[in-house]
Amino acid sequence: MTLDDTTTPATAAAAAYAAPVSAEQRAREEELVARVVASFDGAEDERLRILLQSAVRHLHAFVREVRLTEAEWAAGIDFLTAVGHLTDERRQEFILLSDTLGVSMQTITVNNEAHGDATEATVFGPFFVEDAPHVELGGDIAGGASGQPCWVEGAVRDTTGAPVAGARIEVWEADEDGFYDVQYDDDRTAGRAHLFSDDDGGFRFWAVTPTPYPIPHDGPVGRMLAATGRSPMRASHLHFMVTAPGLRTLVTHIFVRGDELLASDSVFGVRDSLVKDFEEQPAGTPTPDGRDLGERTWARTRFDVVLAPGG
Amino acid sequence: MTLDDTTTPATAAAAAYAAPVSAEQRAREEELVARVVASFDGAEDERLRILLQSAVRHLHAFVREVRLTEAEWAAGIDFLTAVGHLTDERRQEFILLSDTLGVSMQTITVNNEAHGDATEATVFGPFFVEDAPHVELGGDIAGGASGQPCWVEGAVRDTTGAPVAGARIEVWEADEDGFYDVQYDDDRTAGRAHLFSDDDGGFRFWAVTPTPYPIPHDGPVGRMLAATGRSPMRASHLHFMVTAPGLRTLVTHIFVRGDELLASDSVFGVRDSLVKDFEEQPAGTPTPDGRDLGERTWARTRFDVVLAPGG
Ligand SMILES: [Fe+2]
Ligand SMILES: [Fe+2]
Repeated sequence: MTLDDTTTPATAAAAAYAAPVSAEQRAREEELVARVVASFDGAEDERLRILLQSAVRHLHAFVREVRLTEAEWAAGIDFLTAVGHLTDERRQEFILLSDTLGVSMQTITVNNEAHGDATEATVFGPFFVEDAPHVELGGDIAGGASGQPCWVEGAVRDTTGAPVAGARIEVWEADEDGFYDVQYDDDRTAGRAHLFSDDDGGFRFWAVTPTPYPIPHDGPVGRMLAATGRSPMRASHLHFMVTAPGLRTLVTHIFVRGDELLASDSVFGVRDSLVKDFEEQPAGTPTPDGRDLGERTWARTRFDVVLAPGG
Repeated sequence: MTLDDTTTPATAAAAAYAAPVSAEQRAREEELVARVVASFDGAEDERLRILLQSAVRHLHAFVREVRLTEAEWAAGIDFLTAVGHLTDERRQEFILLSDTLGVSMQTITVNNEAHGDATEATVFGPFFVEDAPHVELGGDIAGGASGQPCWVEGAVRDTTGAPVAGARIEVWEADEDGFYDVQYDDDRTAGRAHLFSDDDGGFRFWAVTPTPYPIPHDGPVGRMLAATGRSPMRASHLHFMVTAPGLRTLVTHIFVRGDELLASDSVFGVRDSLVKDFEEQPAGTPTPDGRDLGERTWARTRFDVVLAPGG
């Protein structure tokens, strides 16, 4: 047990890159890690101490493993400076950075351990809005958002299989051009609403079939993606947040089976269990609630939600 | 060999904190790490790929090891946002953060492996200025900076022991109030100069005896130090940068033996080999060059510099 985890070779590539390090040099590096870790020994808040000491060990392990050059260190400082300067009340480039490095999704994963058959969580994203309008079961959350009409239905249950009546279901999504209402030039609300499950836990609503959209990529995070051949596109998805008394709140998405972006979602939000069939219906196919869509095609999907016990 | 280094328990404390993780949960977390690492496989620049893949592994290892909560993640985003907002052309809070986490010093350490008897390097710091005035050997670099006069002498040699004539020696330091000239309200130059070693590699100059000063601590980094019981003070030091054709440039400090801050330098810059005796001289002690200091005490120190072969 050492204070440092660079004793484990991390990847073959990194190991191949690293110059051989003498025992004397290694001792100098490890002594510095130990000194920095010890500087936090006096922190009164034990959790803060543990967080900072772990962060120090991993930061130093990174520097030592890649043998970070001084020019690369300076480039890193410049990158973080640019991320900081783009960040304001409307644009959170640090969250984008966390998202595109999978750190947001790993945090979600750590905090939402698989619990029996409970539905898996995924990233919250930046586009949720409090106090979205209420719609009745069977209503339309599109609110004028463009896109193919899509019928969504399902039921909310707990892990014993019992229906959860009155669960609050928040749903939100981008329009077919890839924009959320908060990205519009005006104050319209569209593509978002909340509704409540019925006595059998059931819910149903009209939305629009999800389509892909890019995360904001005109800043340093976008440059990182471009420099590494990564796409800024998110796989098509519909956001859900489901809350019910005594049960764990679920923040998740459903994804569209067959979407070619499922394997390259820019924020790593896709989980197999959240990929659903969206069955396209020819124009003229009768709708579940008798809605007349004229000559338009439409789609339908089903999402059954299982909430874990609350904590 | 795995893609992830959390298989090595990092510290007893962190291990004690971590909840037991099921094999299934562990697999989900590791699958995510592998997916994010693989997303950078297509980077054309191999070094960029290695840097990002290593950064990803260590970031995820941190999140997993401490079982980072969503609230802690959000606090981390807020902290970085505050660091970014304070950073401008005059204040570089990201560098302060790197310094106070020892990351700057570790980068210096990795890039300046101990080389025979070559003098050890330490952090550059933010207060160097290009084109500082030239002073003749034996001249005064204080330029009006307040403080006890201090005679500094030594010689520059290479690792074979041969004297290095004409080496350029940049020196800079804070005044006795702990301020560098660039922190003054006016444009005065003080406490900095460059000089050249003589034919025997020798150099000598007057300066002021180094005194401690705090790094800027009115921002988020200062709050981190305060929250963890750490001092913002730097151990007393005099900066050197020594350059000569064909030899490795040395960026270092000398420190004052007996300074109680040596063990708690806020940026971890102290190395034992750089701690020097500063011998205080009673008022009236004759000075090496006959300078008349009246009733003032003065100090003297010696710093012999050994430059590594250049690369
Ligand atoms: Fe989204
Ligand atoms: Fe300094």
